[in-house]
Amino acid sequence: MEVGYGSGDKTGFFTQGRRSLKALTVQFKVKTVELARNIKKLGQDDPRRVIHSLKVGLALTLVSMFYYCQPLYSNFDETAIWAIMTVVVVFEFSVGATLGKGLNRGMATLMAGGLGAGAHHLANLSGHIGEPILLGFFVFLQATISTFLRFFPKIKSRYDYGMLIFILTFSLISVSGYRDDEILELAHRRLSTICIGGATCVIISIVIFPVWAGEDLHNLIALNIEKLGNFLEGFGDEYFKRTGVEECNEDKKILEGYKSFLNSNYSEGSLANFAAWEPGHGRFPFRHPWKLYLKVGTLARECAYRIEALNGYLNADIQVSSEVSTIIQEACTTMSLESGKALKELALAIKIMVQPSSADSHIENAKSAAKNIKSLLKSGIWEDIDLLKVIPGVTVCSILVDVVTCTEKIAASIHELASKAQFKSAESPLSEQIQSVKSAQMVNCPHVITVSESTLAASPSESSSAPKASKQSMEV
Amino acid sequence: MEVGYGSGDKTGFFTQGRRSLKALTVQFKVKTVELARNIKKLGQDDPRRVIHSLKVGLALTLVSMFYYCQPLYSNFDETAIWAIMTVVVVFEFSVGATLGKGLNRGMATLMAGGLGAGAHHLANLSGHIGEPILLGFFVFLQATISTFLRFFPKIKSRYDYGMLIFILTFSLISVSGYRDDEILELAHRRLSTICIGGATCVIISIVIFPVWAGEDLHNLIALNIEKLGNFLEGFGDEYFKRTGVEECNEDKKILEGYKSFLNSNYSEGSLANFAAWEPGHGRFPFRHPWKLYLKVGTLARECAYRIEALNGYLNADIQVSSEVSTIIQEACTTMSLESGKALKELALAIKIMVQPSSADSHIENAKSAAKNIKSLLKSGIWEDIDLLKVIPGVTVCSILVDVVTCTEKIAASIHELASKAQFKSAESPLSEQIQSVKSAQMVNCPHVITVSESTLAASPSESSSAPKASKQSMEV
Repeated sequence: MEVGYGSGDKTGFFTQGRRSLKALTVQFKVKTVELARNIKKLGQDDPRRVIHSLKVGLALTLVSMFYYCQPLYSNFDETAIWAIMTVVVVFEFSVGATLGKGLNRGMATLMAGGLGAGAHHLANLSGHIGEPILLGFFVFLQATISTFLRFFPKIKSRYDYGMLIFILTFSLISVSGYRDDEILELAHRRLSTICIGGATCVIISIVIFPVWAGEDLHNLIALNIEKLGNFLEGFGDEYFKRTGVEECNEDKKILEGYKSFLNSNYSEGSLANFAAWEPGHGRFPFRHPWKLYLKVGTLARECAYRIEALNGYLNADIQVSSEVSTIIQEACTTMSLESGKALKELALAIKIMVQPSSADSHIENAKSAAKNIKSLLKSGIWEDIDLLKVIPGVTVCSILVDVVTCTEKIAASIHELASKAQFKSAESPLSEQIQSVKSAQMVNCPHVITVSESTLAASPSESSSAPKASKQSMEV
Repeated sequence: MEVGYGSGDKTGFFTQGRRSLKALTVQFKVKTVELARNIKKLGQDDPRRVIHSLKVGLALTLVSMFYYCQPLYSNFDETAIWAIMTVVVVFEFSVGATLGKGLNRGMATLMAGGLGAGAHHLANLSGHIGEPILLGFFVFLQATISTFLRFFPKIKSRYDYGMLIFILTFSLISVSGYRDDEILELAHRRLSTICIGGATCVIISIVIFPVWAGEDLHNLIALNIEKLGNFLEGFGDEYFKRTGVEECNEDKKILEGYKSFLNSNYSEGSLANFAAWEPGHGRFPFRHPWKLYLKVGTLARECAYRIEALNGYLNADIQVSSEVSTIIQEACTTMSLESGKALKELALAIKIMVQPSSADSHIENAKSAAKNIKSLLKSGIWEDIDLLKVIPGVTVCSILVDVVTCTEKIAASIHELASKAQFKSAESPLSEQIQSVKSAQMVNCPHVITVSESTLAASPSESSSAPKASKQSMEV
């Protein structure tokens, strides 16, 4: 009995083993496929990521040639590792970030090298016992002061990396046990290898498919304003239940596109920071007013908060009653549609860099609709209607009036940007472009008009910009 | 004449020179005083900054002892610079960030060292010509893949620094022109110096006035919710023009305290990230549910968007008319005051880590006030009033009803946090504490009740947390 039981158990064990092995294989296959899909998606979302990775590989391989080429190696010998380190650490996604880090590293090394050599020389004079004490004191003092300076917001935003390298180089040079002449030689070699590494990064990052932080910022702001416009254009129909317009599946997604914008101030800030390091490129001259983009972004975010409130009413259980709807529908739809159109024309004006004058007429329309709704509310129409039924509709109206004011402010800030950045004056092409974009979109989705990412060149999506900005976190 | 003119000119020149020298001295003095004031303010805003700077100085001085102590130096000779580098680069403001970077650096060096040595050995076998080609290929492949992996959000958020060090170490080890046995020796020495540097940082950062990212996150969330509470508590009186309550200068500032919260999601995210690296400390055990704080923060931010809308009505030119005011004042003030009280009790419950049950009654009060206002709106009271006059007041009511819902959601998420983190059950001490805090504040400012930063221990202000988070940007 026991043997029989045992043998049965054994067969069971093998069958089970085979089964669980099979299950494991299947699971492994599933996981691999999932990973492959994730990798593919990451690359497809922003193909520049793949190119960036290849660029880093190329730069590292080039710099490591130092080790293989005897004539080069004999010049620098082991300090050649500094070139490799520089490439790994300095090469960032955008040109601005790479340039900023490279310049920070170079300048800090130069200054700290000189100061460190001086400290070393001074300590050398003070005899055998005094030397380590004095050196220790210098290192302590320098590290403490520099670390504290890193807390200053202005220094942190632009020179944080430089301060770090300053502390590092000063400590290395002043502490090292070499003789004076060797130290100068060391500092000189470190500086030249860093320059070689930094130059490699900067050249590759500019020459091969450059990613300009400034252009990203420009496109990000335009895209965000466009998303607000998309919401507002679609809002009227969506809120009043779109009588007579057929359902479009993409609607909800397009309408809620603005949400990613609510928290994008950090990406905008760091992109503007990087952009300030960039030389003139393409449509953007050196000293392009990047800070104004932040102002536009802040105003647009204020509008986005209002839109978040509107979105709440879109998803609320209590819908506007039909009798109220008939009264306010026209004015509300006009306000929403015209503000939306104005925002989208503003976005397009930023994108193609022309004066945003074509948006003004839409803003005027929206303002006159706001005026209408105010006088409508004053009229005697409402006396017979239950106030509770009126409230949601009236609240939406009042938020929309706010949105019109926000749109005006955004337009003013974009006008300021356009004049400071000397955008071309708007001629016929703008309205023609808009028209062509509109008609292309109309085919897919009759009542929501979108200038989508793919329609206009190289707009980075949120997903690509946010990691780019946070990519800065935690380097060597 | 000419001579006279010339000599007059000369005297004039000297006088002018003396004057401009005086002006320069004065300007220099002003600038110096201003700088000193800025430095003092930076230190006073968060004295932990000064302590952090001193800690960095101490750690660097300790590690540089390697160079002065002959017995230690002879063990490591030049690789001792890695210890200094590690300290400069790994020492961060909070324990979590320091630990995270240290562990990332150690693990990455270990893995990349092994892999690099393997690659070097493999390339060695392939002959004189094949070696550099194969090595170049390995470096290129590794750098490309690792750089691409850094784009994965999960890897970026926790292991970005590790990936960087992985690329660096692999390249250094595999490329270096040493013999195999020397390479193992090099890898071993690099690893041990890095461990020494890292351990120095971690020990100093934990032992001397530790700054825990987890505690900062805990306090930040509590403080932010409290700010919302402050606004709501003050809102009713402020909106209805505070009849019978004397003016208080600090009001506006307290009311607008919530503004910094609108954009704090980035600081919250990075603090939660660092906190996950931290061991158990004080009131927080290891594996404290830090992610739930983010959930609470997100819900509270949604409430903050509503409050931003309310604030717009506070500053609007059109004020609520007196006849409307008399009707809605009570219910609105109750909703606002009770939600505010609830939020402040929730904040206090987080701060002192007790079950937030005392907030429930306030939420119930706010909910019943919301119910009242709804039935009030349904009643016939409004028939004689011009609708335009009603609108601002009614809109404020409807936003307040929204705020009450938000408050409920926040309370639910804090209940979840309290049960997961096993907060103590609330007994008498909580209400007693609140009472004592209240009566202390009442003296200064009769109708705005604040549990200010200084009242409860170690709450970091926004200004200290935001830079701390962004401090991570751009290291070596």
